[in-house]
Amino acid sequence: MDKKALTDCHNRIAPFVHGTAVLTSTLINESLGCKVFFKCENFQRAGAYKIRGATNAILELNEAQRKNGVVTHSSGNFAQAVSLAAKSIGITAHIVMPTSAPKVKKEGVIAYGGHIYECEPTVEARQSMADRIAAETGAVFLHPSNDLNVIIGQGTAALELLAEQPDLSFIFCPVGGGGLIAGSSLSAKYFGQDCKVIGGEPFEADDAYRSLISGKIEGNETINTIADGLRTTLGDINFPIIQDNVSKIVRVTEAEIVLAMRLVWERMKIIIEPSSAVAFAALIKDNQGNPLEFQNKKVGIIISGGNVDLNQLPF
Amino acid sequence: MDKKALTDCHNRIAPFVHGTAVLTSTLINESLGCKVFFKCENFQRAGAYKIRGATNAILELNEAQRKNGVVTHSSGNFAQAVSLAAKSIGITAHIVMPTSAPKVKKEGVIAYGGHIYECEPTVEARQSMADRIAAETGAVFLHPSNDLNVIIGQGTAALELLAEQPDLSFIFCPVGGGGLIAGSSLSAKYFGQDCKVIGGEPFEADDAYRSLISGKIEGNETINTIADGLRTTLGDINFPIIQDNVSKIVRVTEAEIVLAMRLVWERMKIIIEPSSAVAFAALIKDNQGNPLEFQNKKVGIIISGGNVDLNQLPF
Repeated sequence: MDKKALTDCHNRIAPFVHGTAVLTSTLINESLGCKVFFKCENFQRAGAYKIRGATNAILELNEAQRKNGVVTHSSGNFAQAVSLAAKSIGITAHIVMPTSAPKVKKEGVIAYGGHIYECEPTVEARQSMADRIAAETGAVFLHPSNDLNVIIGQGTAALELLAEQPDLSFIFCPVGGGGLIAGSSLSAKYFGQDCKVIGGEPFEADDAYRSLISGKIEGNETINTIADGLRTTLGDINFPIIQDNVSKIVRVTEAEIVLAMRLVWERMKIIIEPSSAVAFAALIKDNQGNPLEFQNKKVGIIISGGNVDLNQLPF
Repeated sequence: MDKKALTDCHNRIAPFVHGTAVLTSTLINESLGCKVFFKCENFQRAGAYKIRGATNAILELNEAQRKNGVVTHSSGNFAQAVSLAAKSIGITAHIVMPTSAPKVKKEGVIAYGGHIYECEPTVEARQSMADRIAAETGAVFLHPSNDLNVIIGQGTAALELLAEQPDLSFIFCPVGGGGLIAGSSLSAKYFGQDCKVIGGEPFEADDAYRSLISGKIEGNETINTIADGLRTTLGDINFPIIQDNVSKIVRVTEAEIVLAMRLVWERMKIIIEPSSAVAFAALIKDNQGNPLEFQNKKVGIIISGGNVDLNQLPF
């Protein structure tokens, strides 16, 4: 993995993804004492950054591999992303989704032409059903986060953010399966100027926090979090990248997630999903603990998505 | 009123207001068969276009007039706008608000340092309390919509939209007190290329629709609409401008308003208030009736604001 792999990927996927806006809020900057740049992947196609990695992974398949389509498992955003990317490129998408996935995300998959297979909301159930579909149909399995082509694709959001704001001191990023933060940390390494990457994670699904401490991949003890995109665990491909390039993980409570989400909705008038609010909540919390570390600094936040079920809002 | 009055106003208020983004949505364009450009005044300071007119009106006051501050009445967005503009310019703001005004808008006024006076939610009660405060304090009365300096200020949103998209065939605009649509229609006249301005109005507060038919200012028979910013009526200064420059008014049902609002929230991931959704609902409805008129045309929508009480959502 080098700088060129990220740049090549960015060029490769450009015709299929949006270059999303970077927004700021005077009120938020004043209240935190630093300059916060929100990279709005909620405005991305299919409503989340995931289309970047999905598109890159599919474009890297050869003709023979594309023939029987692709299969993946996802709580929602990667599912929609693979469906849309597959449709754009003209191949079939088989999508395994946990029964707990938000309705709005299932509807998105159907709208983009993906075929849904429901399973129990456990990592094991998701993987075994995906394996079975791959065996039966010949579809290529795409892992939503533990695949180098996916990781590099997800990193292009931070690449674009740093192209616009090269002197960010920090990038905050939510941590679910680890693909986004691994990719973002590679972009920070190659395109930042001493830019630290900090993960945000719910206390209720803090596998990455504990994995960085123990030095091995830990499972989640609970997944009782509103941040439905962050209930998954790290993988053996993204974990070493995270170990090498992520400064730390800040854990936040469910109340802190909802408060951060509401603050962005009310102040910035943009719709972000709870998983994205986790990254902002982590900044708020870390800034409360160490305000001098952030004072007048430029801080990026990857707003990972905006796919919220409006019938299931936490306020 | 000429072109220069609008350009001068735009320059005058520029240090105090945001030049807001213009957003588009592939999905919305595909479903309507035209190219829709959303002028995002929900991203404006204080969450709505009203700061434009409020700032212009205050900046046009002389030293002696500014001394005792300003007084206005408003269901919410103009109240916040005057409070913030007055604070920026360093004068006092007295704000008359109907008891029915959304809590979030009252909180905004307080946050910006405005002094609130509550009154019954009728046009008469609002005006008489504002008159009393003006008499007692010496504050200058600013009308939220029937004041030429306010109208010109509100027109600068459409001016910016046309600077970015000069060949719009239509601009849709919500109609409440008439300031925004009057100003927008002046910008369309001076800066557009045969750009028609169409108003959107709830059936439940259709005073402007009936006023254009009867040729005189009509009151509202009901104000039972979710679009809380559109419950007011036209005035003698903006009505002639509307008569001369607005093509027509399209009325929409409450269900159509909520559907349009939800569509924008879900597809564009931006928070717009019901009053703004009325303009988009009017486009959807008019497009259903005359799809050929809009086919492949460029259509602007003034998204007037994003101040929604998240505890009182219609979905």
